[in-house]
Amino acid sequence: MANKIRMGMVGGGPGAFIGAIHRMAAEMTGDIELVAGAFSRDAAASKAFGVELGLDPERAYGSFDEMFAAEAALPEDQRMQCVAIVTPNDSHKPITCAALAAGFHVMCDKPAAGNLEDALAMEKAVKASGLLFGLTHTYTGYPLVMEARERVARGELGKIRRVAVSYLQDWMSRESDNGSSKQATWRSDPARSGESGAFGDIGTHAFNLVEFITGERFTEVAADMRAVVPGRSIDDDGQAMFRLAGGGVGLLSASQVCTGSINALKIEVYGEEASLFWFQEQPNTLTIKRRGEPEQVLHANTPYLCDAAQAVARTPAGHPEGYIEAFSNLYKAFAADLRAYPATPEQPAYATIDDGVAALRFIRASLNSSANGSAWTALGDA
Amino acid sequence: MANKIRMGMVGGGPGAFIGAIHRMAAEMTGDIELVAGAFSRDAAASKAFGVELGLDPERAYGSFDEMFAAEAALPEDQRMQCVAIVTPNDSHKPITCAALAAGFHVMCDKPAAGNLEDALAMEKAVKASGLLFGLTHTYTGYPLVMEARERVARGELGKIRRVAVSYLQDWMSRESDNGSSKQATWRSDPARSGESGAFGDIGTHAFNLVEFITGERFTEVAADMRAVVPGRSIDDDGQAMFRLAGGGVGLLSASQVCTGSINALKIEVYGEEASLFWFQEQPNTLTIKRRGEPEQVLHANTPYLCDAAQAVARTPAGHPEGYIEAFSNLYKAFAADLRAYPATPEQPAYATIDDGVAALRFIRASLNSSANGSAWTALGDA
Amino acid sequence: MANKIRMGMVGGGPGAFIGAIHRMAAEMTGDIELVAGAFSRDAAASKAFGVELGLDPERAYGSFDEMFAAEAALPEDQRMQCVAIVTPNDSHKPITCAALAAGFHVMCDKPAAGNLEDALAMEKAVKASGLLFGLTHTYTGYPLVMEARERVARGELGKIRRVAVSYLQDWMSRESDNGSSKQATWRSDPARSGESGAFGDIGTHAFNLVEFITGERFTEVAADMRAVVPGRSIDDDGQAMFRLAGGGVGLLSASQVCTGSINALKIEVYGEEASLFWFQEQPNTLTIKRRGEPEQVLHANTPYLCDAAQAVARTPAGHPEGYIEAFSNLYKAFAADLRAYPATPEQPAYATIDDGVAALRFIRASLNSSANGSAWTALGDA
Amino acid sequence: MANKIRMGMVGGGPGAFIGAIHRMAAEMTGDIELVAGAFSRDAAASKAFGVELGLDPERAYGSFDEMFAAEAALPEDQRMQCVAIVTPNDSHKPITCAALAAGFHVMCDKPAAGNLEDALAMEKAVKASGLLFGLTHTYTGYPLVMEARERVARGELGKIRRVAVSYLQDWMSRESDNGSSKQATWRSDPARSGESGAFGDIGTHAFNLVEFITGERFTEVAADMRAVVPGRSIDDDGQAMFRLAGGGVGLLSASQVCTGSINALKIEVYGEEASLFWFQEQPNTLTIKRRGEPEQVLHANTPYLCDAAQAVARTPAGHPEGYIEAFSNLYKAFAADLRAYPATPEQPAYATIDDGVAALRFIRASLNSSANGSAWTALGDA
Repeated sequence: MANKIRMGMVGGGPGAFIGAIHRMAAEMTGDIELVAGAFSRDAAASKAFGVELGLDPERAYGSFDEMFAAEAALPEDQRMQCVAIVTPNDSHKPITCAALAAGFHVMCDKPAAGNLEDALAMEKAVKASGLLFGLTHTYTGYPLVMEARERVARGELGKIRRVAVSYLQDWMSRESDNGSSKQATWRSDPARSGESGAFGDIGTHAFNLVEFITGERFTEVAADMRAVVPGRSIDDDGQAMFRLAGGGVGLLSASQVCTGSINALKIEVYGEEASLFWFQEQPNTLTIKRRGEPEQVLHANTPYLCDAAQAVARTPAGHPEGYIEAFSNLYKAFAADLRAYPATPEQPAYATIDDGVAALRFIRASLNSSANGSAWTALGDA
Repeated sequence: MANKIRMGMVGGGPGAFIGAIHRMAAEMTGDIELVAGAFSRDAAASKAFGVELGLDPERAYGSFDEMFAAEAALPEDQRMQCVAIVTPNDSHKPITCAALAAGFHVMCDKPAAGNLEDALAMEKAVKASGLLFGLTHTYTGYPLVMEARERVARGELGKIRRVAVSYLQDWMSRESDNGSSKQATWRSDPARSGESGAFGDIGTHAFNLVEFITGERFTEVAADMRAVVPGRSIDDDGQAMFRLAGGGVGLLSASQVCTGSINALKIEVYGEEASLFWFQEQPNTLTIKRRGEPEQVLHANTPYLCDAAQAVARTPAGHPEGYIEAFSNLYKAFAADLRAYPATPEQPAYATIDDGVAALRFIRASLNSSANGSAWTALGDA
Repeated sequence: MANKIRMGMVGGGPGAFIGAIHRMAAEMTGDIELVAGAFSRDAAASKAFGVELGLDPERAYGSFDEMFAAEAALPEDQRMQCVAIVTPNDSHKPITCAALAAGFHVMCDKPAAGNLEDALAMEKAVKASGLLFGLTHTYTGYPLVMEARERVARGELGKIRRVAVSYLQDWMSRESDNGSSKQATWRSDPARSGESGAFGDIGTHAFNLVEFITGERFTEVAADMRAVVPGRSIDDDGQAMFRLAGGGVGLLSASQVCTGSINALKIEVYGEEASLFWFQEQPNTLTIKRRGEPEQVLHANTPYLCDAAQAVARTPAGHPEGYIEAFSNLYKAFAADLRAYPATPEQPAYATIDDGVAALRFIRASLNSSANGSAWTALGDA
Repeated sequence: MANKIRMGMVGGGPGAFIGAIHRMAAEMTGDIELVAGAFSRDAAASKAFGVELGLDPERAYGSFDEMFAAEAALPEDQRMQCVAIVTPNDSHKPITCAALAAGFHVMCDKPAAGNLEDALAMEKAVKASGLLFGLTHTYTGYPLVMEARERVARGELGKIRRVAVSYLQDWMSRESDNGSSKQATWRSDPARSGESGAFGDIGTHAFNLVEFITGERFTEVAADMRAVVPGRSIDDDGQAMFRLAGGGVGLLSASQVCTGSINALKIEVYGEEASLFWFQEQPNTLTIKRRGEPEQVLHANTPYLCDAAQAVARTPAGHPEGYIEAFSNLYKAFAADLRAYPATPEQPAYATIDDGVAALRFIRASLNSSANGSAWTALGDA
C-alpha cells in the first residue's frame, strides 16, 4: 500500500523473538510497511530471511551498513524512512549512529544501550540529527498504564508516597541455562548485554514504568545486585531502594532467577489520596484504592478511561488486548510523529532518548551503589 | 508480498467493528493479504473505504455481486482466493452462496445464518461446492481453549457430568439502547439478525464453546427466552438446561441486558476425574481442579501445553495475547487449509458449516422449547 | 457465667462436624452457654461425650426425651432455655415438636426437614407454640451477604432480572464414597436425608441465599435432577431454571459430584441498574458492577457497609472472618431474640420456619418438575 | 468447666480491640477459661469491665500487681495459671517480669517490647523463670502459613534466593488521624509504642513471618524509615533490604500511611526449585509455583496439607476460617505446652522470647541503618 510509512529492520532474524514482535506490532498499526532489512550478521542468512518475509530480494541486505547506503540512494518516495533496531544492546549505539547519519529515524529496542557512555553518545547523536528516536518500553503501550499515568497527572493520587515495582522472571534460574539459547547467551554476556544483566534487561522496564506512571524522576538509589547462578559475571538478580524527585520512596527488584515467575511485572503506587495497582499478567485491568471506600477495578476499552487510553482501543470492552497490541501502540505513536516530522512531538507516547539515558543512569547508579555497600547514590552523579 | 493468500471482504465498512477485527486478524497471520472488498451497501462509500484501506481502487467494488464477477474474471494468480463475510446475519446465505458459486472459499462471521433454514441451504451449497467454509467462533482460537479441548479429548476429565456456560453482556440493557447504534439496531431487528437476538448473537458462541471443548453434541434443550427491555421483538436474555450426547447435563445463559457484565463468557466443565474453568476476560489462564489435590493454573505459551496450543503462541510465556490473536488463529488455520486445498482438512481448527448448522439447530430448538413451556426439545428435531 | 443463655444440644456427638461448629459458633457469641446435651442415639456415648465437653454429668443425657423432661423439671433459672438440633434431617420434626412441647426454643440445622409434609407439621407446631425457631442457613450470616441484601433492598440494583446460583461440591463424586462416612451414609439415605440429596442438603442453601438477598420468593421451577453415581437412590446432582415473584429468572445448580469443587457456593444477581457477586470461598468481599463504570470491590468490616454488616464485625477491616463467625452471627441474632422474648422479632437475621417451608416447597416442586419432564412447576402447588 | 486452663488478662478493656480478639481466640480453643483480669489502669473501670465479662467480681482486679498477688494466694487448683498481656508495648516488660516473678506463664501481644533493651531484660527473666512465654504473631497461626513453613523445611523450594514481604495499612494516613483514637495515640507515641512506629507494630509481623516460613534468621538490613505524616516523631512508613543467614536476600516494607491498603500483608518466597505466595487478605490459599509447570493453589483444610496444618482445621475444606481462628491456634498450642509443663516444648507453634528479641534486633538494626544513610547493619550488632 503506497502511502504507508516505509520501515527497515536491523536484527530480528530467525529465532529472535523480539524481531517478530516488532514486525507484527508495526504491521498492526496499519500504517507501517516493512520494506527492507538486515536481519542477521550472516549476510546470506539475512537475505534468505528477508525473502522469506516477502521482501523485495533487492532490499534484503547483508549488513546494516549496506542497507543504510543502498536505501539512502533510492528515490525519496521509495526509500525507507525509519529503521527498527532489534539487536543485542551492545550494537544499539553503532547502528543508531549510522542510521541517523544516513538520515533515518530510529525505533530501538530497550535498553538504549549496554552502558551509560554509549547512551550518552547516542543522546548526542540524536539531538544533533534532529531525527526521531524511540525506545520500545513496551509496558507503557498498555491502555491501563496510560490510564494510570493520567490518574497520577490529574492529581487523583495526591503526592506520591511509596512505590513498589518488581519484574521477576525465571528463565535463567538454572546453571544449565547458561548458553542454552541465543537469548540466554547474549543476555548474560557483558560484551553483548552491557554492564548489567537482569537490571539492564528488565530492571530498566521497571524503572521506566515508575517514571512513566508517576511522572517523576528517580533521584537516588541504594542497590544490592548479584549473580546468583554460578558461571555468570553480571547480575541475574537485584534489588534497590529508591527516592523520587517528589519525595516519595520505593522498592524495585528485578530478577531472571525467581523460580515460578514467568514474566511477573507488577507496580503499586501509593499516594496521599489513593493508590493504584497494575500487573502485566492481567494487563486489561487497573485497580484503584482509596481509604474507607470500595476498591475500584477499571477495565480496558471502557468509556470511563482517559482519551489516550481510549484512543488505542482496537476491540470492544471486555475483549482483552495483549502484548503485541501494546507494542503496536508505541509504533502507532511513532508513526504519527513521523508523519508530523519535522514538527517536534509534544509528549511522545513512547520512550525517548532522554528516558533511555535516564534508565542507564539508573543502572550505573545501581551498580555503583551495589559495589559500594549499597550506599545511597544519586542518579545525577552517574 | 506475492505469495500471500489473496482475500476479499464483504461488509466491514466504516464504523463496523468486526470487519476491522477480521482484517487485523487476517493480516496478523502474515499469510493473508486483503486485495478486494465490497464494504458497504452504498457503492460510493464502499469504494472510498477500499481506497482508504490502501486497496487498488479497481478492486474496491460497489457490491459483492460485482466483486465476485470481476475477481472471477482476473487471471488465476491475481484474483482473490477467498472472501471474508462480515455482514449482518440475514445476508450470510445469499453472499455465501454467491461466493461459492463464483468459486471462492468463504470465511464467515458467526452465526452461520439468521435461521436454521438458511443455514441448511448454506450447508447444501458448501457441500456441493467442495470449497472451504469457516465460521469465526472466536473463542476457540484461544490457546487455552485449545488446551481445554485437548485435556478433555485425552480423557483427563473422564466422562463429562456437568457444564456451566454463560455469556452475559450489558450493552443493550436499557430502552434507550434501542436504535442507538448500527449494531444495536440490526441486532435487535429480526429481519437482519434472524429469529433470535441474544441467543443467536452470543448464545451460539456459548453453545459452540461447549461443543468444541467437550467434543460432544447437544442432544436436547429446555429453554426459557424473553425480551426483557421494552420495544424488542426478539430475545435479549435467555437461559436453558441442556443434555449432551455423552450423558452430561448443563446450564447455558446468554444475555445482552445483564448490567455490569461487559463481555463475560465463562465456561466450567466437570468430569468424573477433573474439572476445568476458563473465563474470556482472563483468557491466558486455564484452571484445572481435581478432588483432593491442589488446583492447577495453566498459563499460555508455556512448555506444558499441548502442541496445538503451543503452535499458536506468538509471544513468550507471561506476555498475554488477546482477542485479535485468537481471531487470527482461526484465519491462520483457514489459510493453512486453503494452501492444502483441495485436500480435505482433517480437523479444522475453526468452526465449519456443520458447527454452524448445529448452532442454528440449538437456536431453533431453544425457541421451540421456550415457546412450548420450556419442554425438553431434541436438537435433532429442529 | 451466670447470665448467659443456657442451651442444650441434640446430636453432634463424636465425629459429627456440624455439631462442633454449632458449639463454637454459640460460644463465640459470648452470650450462650452449653449446659445440656443428648449427643448420640447411644446413651452411654452421649453421656461420655457430654462429660468430655465439660458438662455437668447430670446434664449429659441419654436421649432427647430424657433431656427435655429433666430440664423442664429444673428451676427456671437453671434449666436450659433453648436447644440446638443438629441431627440428620428425618429427625428434625420429632425433636423439634418434642422440644417445643416441653417449652424450649429451637435452633435447628437446615433443611427444616427431610420432606415438605414434615416441614409443614413443624410450621404448625412452631406457630402454635409461640416459641422461637431458627434455621442455620449459614451463608446469610456473612457480613457481605447482609450487605448484598441491603443493597438490593435499598433499590441499588433496580428490578432484578437474572440470578445465577450454584453450590457444587465433590465429596461424594465416587462410587467408593457410598457408605464411606457417617455423613455420606445418611446424606444419601432417603430414610435419613429425606426425599432429596444434593438439592435437599445444599440446594436449599442456594435457594435460601437467593431469597435472602433478593427479598423475593421463588414462584416456579423447571428442574432436572438425577443420581449420577451408581448405587444412589436420591439426587446427587441437579439443576433448575426458576422464576422470582418480581419477574426475574435464574439458574440454580447443586451437586455433590462436581469433581474439584470443594465447597463452591456462588451467587450473581443482575438488576436493571447494577449487579452483585459473592463467592463463599472468598466471603470477605462483595463485588458490585454497573454499566460503564469501574467495578467496585467491597471489603468486610469497613465503614461503608450497612449497619447490619458492621454490627457483626469482630475484627478490624482487612482481617478476614470466616465460617464459624458467620454461623455465630446467626446464634447471636437468635440470642438477642431470645432475650427479647416474648416480643416478636421484627426481621430475624436467621432463617425462620417460613423460610424452611419455602425451601422444602422448592425441593418438592423441583422433584415434581424433574419427574415431569422438567415442566415448569409452581412452588405454591407443592 | 473445671478442667480448663485458667487464664488472667492485663489490658484489653473497653474499646481495645486486641483484648477482645485474645479472649475470643482463647475461648475458641475450648481449653482455656478467663478467670481473672486487670483490664484498665482505672481500677473502677477494670472491675466493672470484668463483671461485664461475667468474671467473678472478686477476680476483676484494679491493677496487675493486685491481680498477681491475689491470684498467687489462691489455692493451686483455683488460681490462674497464665496471663495474657495485651497492653501497649512499653508496659510489656514490667508486667511480664511481675507475672513471671509471681509464677505465672505469659502470653504477650507482639512486639515483645518497645525497645531492644526491654526485650533483652524480658528474655533474661523468662529464661531465669523457666516459665512459658509466648508472643502472638498472629499470622503464623494460619494453616497455610504452617504449610508454607513445612514446604520450605521439607526442601521443596530449595535454597531460598529472594523474599518479598510487605505489610501496608492506611489507618494513619492523614494528619487528622493523630490523636483520633486510643490506638492511633499510643501507637505514634514513642513513650508507649517504643522507638519505632510502623516497623515496631507491623514490620515485626512481616519480619517474624519471613523467619517463620524460611526458618532462617535475618543477618543484615539496610533500612530507610521516616515519618511521612506531619506531627509524628516515629516512623509511620519504612522499607529495608535484608539478607538471610542462608544467603538469600529480600525486601521488606511496612507502612501505616499507604492509602487504600486495609491490612495488606503479603509474602513471596523464591527458592531454587519453587516459590510460594501468601496474602493475608485471602489466608485460606497458598500458591506454589515451579518453573515450566502449572502453578498450584492449595486450599485450607484439605487432605494434602501437612499434619500441622490439618491439625488446626476446625471446618471442612472450602469453609474459610479467619483471623480469630488463626489467633486461637496460637493459644491452642500454648495451652498444649502449658499442660505438658514443665516439659520443654519442642518447637512451639507460637513465637517465643527468642523470636521477640530477634524482632527487636531487627527494629534496632533498621533504626541504626536508617539513621546511618541506610548502611548495611548486622542484626547481631544491635
